[in-house]
Amino acid sequence: MKKINIAILGLGNIGTGTYKLLEMNRKHIEQATDIDFQVKWILEKYTELDRGIVVDPKRWTQDPDEIMSDPCVDVVVELLGGIEFSTKLMIDAMNAGKHVVTANKAAVAANFEILTETAEKNGVLFRYEASVGGGIPLINAITTSLVANEWVEFFGILNGTTNFILTKMTEEKLPYDVVLSEAQERGFAEADPTADVEGIDVANKLSILMSIVFGKRVRPEEIPTTGITKITSRDIDDAAKDNCVIKLLASAKKVGDEITCSVEPVLLNKKHPLSEVNDEFNALFLKGNAVDDVMLYGKGAGPLPTASAIWGDVIEIGRSVTNE
Amino acid sequence: MKKINIAILGLGNIGTGTYKLLEMNRKHIEQATDIDFQVKWILEKYTELDRGIVVDPKRWTQDPDEIMSDPCVDVVVELLGGIEFSTKLMIDAMNAGKHVVTANKAAVAANFEILTETAEKNGVLFRYEASVGGGIPLINAITTSLVANEWVEFFGILNGTTNFILTKMTEEKLPYDVVLSEAQERGFAEADPTADVEGIDVANKLSILMSIVFGKRVRPEEIPTTGITKITSRDIDDAAKDNCVIKLLASAKKVGDEITCSVEPVLLNKKHPLSEVNDEFNALFLKGNAVDDVMLYGKGAGPLPTASAIWGDVIEIGRSVTNE
Repeated sequence: MKKINIAILGLGNIGTGTYKLLEMNRKHIEQATDIDFQVKWILEKYTELDRGIVVDPKRWTQDPDEIMSDPCVDVVVELLGGIEFSTKLMIDAMNAGKHVVTANKAAVAANFEILTETAEKNGVLFRYEASVGGGIPLINAITTSLVANEWVEFFGILNGTTNFILTKMTEEKLPYDVVLSEAQERGFAEADPTADVEGIDVANKLSILMSIVFGKRVRPEEIPTTGITKITSRDIDDAAKDNCVIKLLASAKKVGDEITCSVEPVLLNKKHPLSEVNDEFNALFLKGNAVDDVMLYGKGAGPLPTASAIWGDVIEIGRSVTNE
Repeated sequence: MKKINIAILGLGNIGTGTYKLLEMNRKHIEQATDIDFQVKWILEKYTELDRGIVVDPKRWTQDPDEIMSDPCVDVVVELLGGIEFSTKLMIDAMNAGKHVVTANKAAVAANFEILTETAEKNGVLFRYEASVGGGIPLINAITTSLVANEWVEFFGILNGTTNFILTKMTEEKLPYDVVLSEAQERGFAEADPTADVEGIDVANKLSILMSIVFGKRVRPEEIPTTGITKITSRDIDDAAKDNCVIKLLASAKKVGDEITCSVEPVLLNKKHPLSEVNDEFNALFLKGNAVDDVMLYGKGAGPLPTASAIWGDVIEIGRSVTNE
């Protein structure tokens, strides 16, 4: 059996899920791939936290150079979050000839050109399925099975926190502030929810999708973005009277040579498949000139769903490397 | 630009759609892949039919050996339908060192072992995304992005004809016979609708999914299969009273080491995402031990949606071959 060594940068929620998934499904993954995946290094300061996993103490490091200079490391999985430092480490890894997988939408959206160009320059693979839509196979479906399509438009629900809030406001007829507090208590929203509720997180994901679907680079800050903070119970009621629900949508459309995109709360008729995407679920709806309407639906966040997408990328890289 | 030559076996509806898609999106496909795809041969008796396409007369052949013995042919796309002859040609093509793509669920379901083993023996690729769910990226998503998951269960609406009939019976409160006649008039059902309405077509697709999802070979005729011919307006009404709809589902479930599967009409609560999959649309709902719930939705039939999946496979083969 061939062997692929990975290094995980950051053992937060997603990093821990990524580690757990391999422990949980190792036998299945070996059978499916005939590859022995090993976590060679974990870059993490807090080694003493109880994460419910067993880590060989030799695997911890706090020195990125130990990873970059180790010729045995095939794939670096960046799960640190943030933009500057994580981008630097991804570029360092690529320059050291390592393939890179990330779930970091902010870093990919901010630094798409330099990351993709550095990967190409070094002849390494760079994959980021988990950065948009968590576990849903979006980016890889668009770039492989669906690649023959010219796309007309797409729109999606790409943030679990805001979708959870809007669903609760609709189903339980509660005001925004009350639902936000509940979401924070239950861990569905962060203490500072700005990036979610103001649509910034969705704009990062839309920026990535614009590159993938339309081959057009749009920086997140260039995307007209409205969050959900001004949605009232009255708005939700009015929508219901018109047989609609309010959803925070990332939308993009091609008309002639012009491609427009935006993030904003939108009235969706209850007949539309996206109107039934509730709670923390995400979905992307696309219209292609061959496949017509297609929708991909699943959990847009959470350690194991996100780890599913990360391992999909790591495994594809492993297959590609061991086939050479 | 590298070049990939394909041969299309059979220029019926799907074959014509496959040819049209390349004409329609050639520039887009070249930009996305840096590969020049050419249709070198078309195996077809009826060359004079008006299909709304222009074919260089040199491309027609009625002799499969002309294709198999042509060293320039990289990929054979089998779109003849039927089982025996199409399987023979796929095996001949593989033995001649050619990669094979097919949309033929009956042939794949009947001859899964010999087809996959012959491909492996010859070191060629064999892909059949279009055989289940038309344009929906199912098989490739399960075998790549989602491959790290152990699957708990899946169920899907995988036949457009029966879903069209059940949708009409539900929405327009019409009896089965009336709706079937309308479906036949509108081209949604064949003159002999047996394979669709008795669930045989779905059983073929479920057989393929059992191999892909659970790695378990179940022949279509071994699957307990009930069609929709006995569904009455009364059944539909009774379902509605319980806030349910009736859908013809392909289902499979793993309990312990036991994996069971069946095709039958099922009561689905209107809250379930599959309950909103109407008319000719298809969808597959899966539960994995990492990704949790995921659903893939789109057009399960039709020339261009099916051609989208066929080209996804051809392009992936083209990329793989030109990368060697």
